[in-house]
Formats: sequence, structure tokens, C-alpha cells
Amino acid sequence: MKSIQPRSDCPISYTLDILGDKWMLLILRDMIFAEKESYKEFMQSEEGIATNVLADRLSLLESEKFITKKVSPANKKSFVYRLTDKGITLIPLIIEITLWGSTFNPKGGNKELLKKLKKDKEGVVAEFTTKMKERAFKSTARA
Amino acid sequence: MKSIQPRSDCPISYTLDILGDKWMLLILRDMIFAEKESYKEFMQSEEGIATNVLADRLSLLESEKFITKKVSPANKKSFVYRLTDKGITLIPLIIEITLWGSTFNPKGGNKELLKKLKKDKEGVVAEFTTKMKERAFKSTARA
Repeated sequence: MKSIQPRSDCPISYTLDILGDKWMLLILRDMIFAEKESYKEFMQSEEGIATNVLADRLSLLESEKFITKKVSPANKKSFVYRLTDKGITLIPLIIEITLWGSTFNPKGGNKELLKKLKKDKEGVVAEFTTKMKERAFKSTARA
Repeated sequence: MKSIQPRSDCPISYTLDILGDKWMLLILRDMIFAEKESYKEFMQSEEGIATNVLADRLSLLESEKFITKKVSPANKKSFVYRLTDKGITLIPLIIEITLWGSTFNPKGGNKELLKKLKKDKEGVVAEFTTKMKERAFKSTARA
């Protein structure tokens, strides 16, 4: 697993050292909004992530403790990925990215969700935080 | 100037197409929190941006209309860069990045600002938005 060398002690720089990339947060988007959890599902997203990029970013997300993986109960040869508590703390940031993007690129996205977001950002953050906490692997569960 | 080809219509993907990079938002950080406005000042930041990277990102920020440049009144051979109204709309996102980063990397950052941020995020967003609007080039001003 890779480790990240921070460029400075600045909190913004630190965040970008880890997440300043075109793909890291897209994988988390898929986990949060589309409830995707497998390599195969991530591969199917519209942006067309390359297999080597996906494998690299999953490994990085895991080494930074944003996600954990476990052997899939349905298929012992594959894994399922879920957000950790640390990963869940990224929801407000991802919501802010969604809001900004939807202002300047109004073509895509879930219209109903975006409408709700513009009215009640904190409510939407709370809703997805609860949902992801319910989906998270319990620390006592075995792989 | 470069133009960006969006990978999909998703608002998150769109934002990352433009800003998903380790440097773009750091330059904006310097403009917002340190009131930097010249190439020379951006070069002096702790993270040690390379000259070619800085030139590339400034050009991209300008072509995406986040910043405008004008000939410096003090030195006709150099430029000053300021946020546009569109650039100013990134402040809530940058504040969210700051908050997240300061939770997981508590070493750096302006302690007083971080304390204020944790208490009153909306107030800090409003404060910097006003400040940056005051600093912005007026559209009637000439270069």
C-alpha cells in the first residue's frame, strides 16, 4: 500500500494530498449515492475508470482507512467495499462538491436529490451519514 | 488555453474534472486566506509549486473564469490575479476542505480561524465572500 507524504501542515494541502485527484471522490460518490460496493460495479460507472486506476485508488482509499474490504458472502472470489467512520466524515465535503457542480453544470445528477440539497443541505448530509453508518461493516463482523 | 472535456454529466465528476488536482485549490487558498495575488507570492508557498505547474494552473483557472489577471499597477511587467464572482463561489467548498483537513491533520493552519470555523462555518464563509468581493477587479476597471 502506498503512503502519502504531506507537502505541508496546512489542512487544505493535507486534504488535497489525499483526495486531490479526479478519481478518489468518484469512487466514494458511487458508494454513497449509488450504494455500489464491488469492483465490477465501480467499473460500470459512466466515467469509464481504467482497471489499473480503480485498483490503485481502492488500495489508497483502504490504506487511508476511508474504506474496508471483506470477502463477498455471495462470491468468495470477490470483495465488497464499504465506507468506514472516517470515510463517512467526507460526506459534507462531497455534498458541497455536488452543490457547486450542479450550479455550474446543471445537466446531470439526480434532480430530486439536488432540489432537496438546495433547500436542506444539513438534512441531506445527516440522511446519507445515517445510511452509510447502517451499511458499514461492524467491527465485530468477520470477513 | 486548455479546455476541459467532461467525463460525464454528473455534478461531482464535473467539479473534479476541473478541480480534482493537488494544486488548483491551493492557489485559490493563497488568494483567499493569504491575500496573495502575484506569481512570485504563489511561488513562495510552503508546498513548493514548480514554475511550470503554477503557470499551467493559473492559465486553467483563468480559462475556467475563476480568476482574472491584470497588469500590476506597481510593476508593468508583472500581473496581479484576483478571484472572479465564479471563483468566489468556491469558498464554501474550500471551507469544507479546511474543516475536514483540520480534523484529521490537526498540526497546521491558522488556529484562530479554525476555532471560528468550527463554531460558525456560515459566518466564516460570509466573511471571506465579502472580503473577496471587495478585492475583485471591478468589471469597469481597465487592465
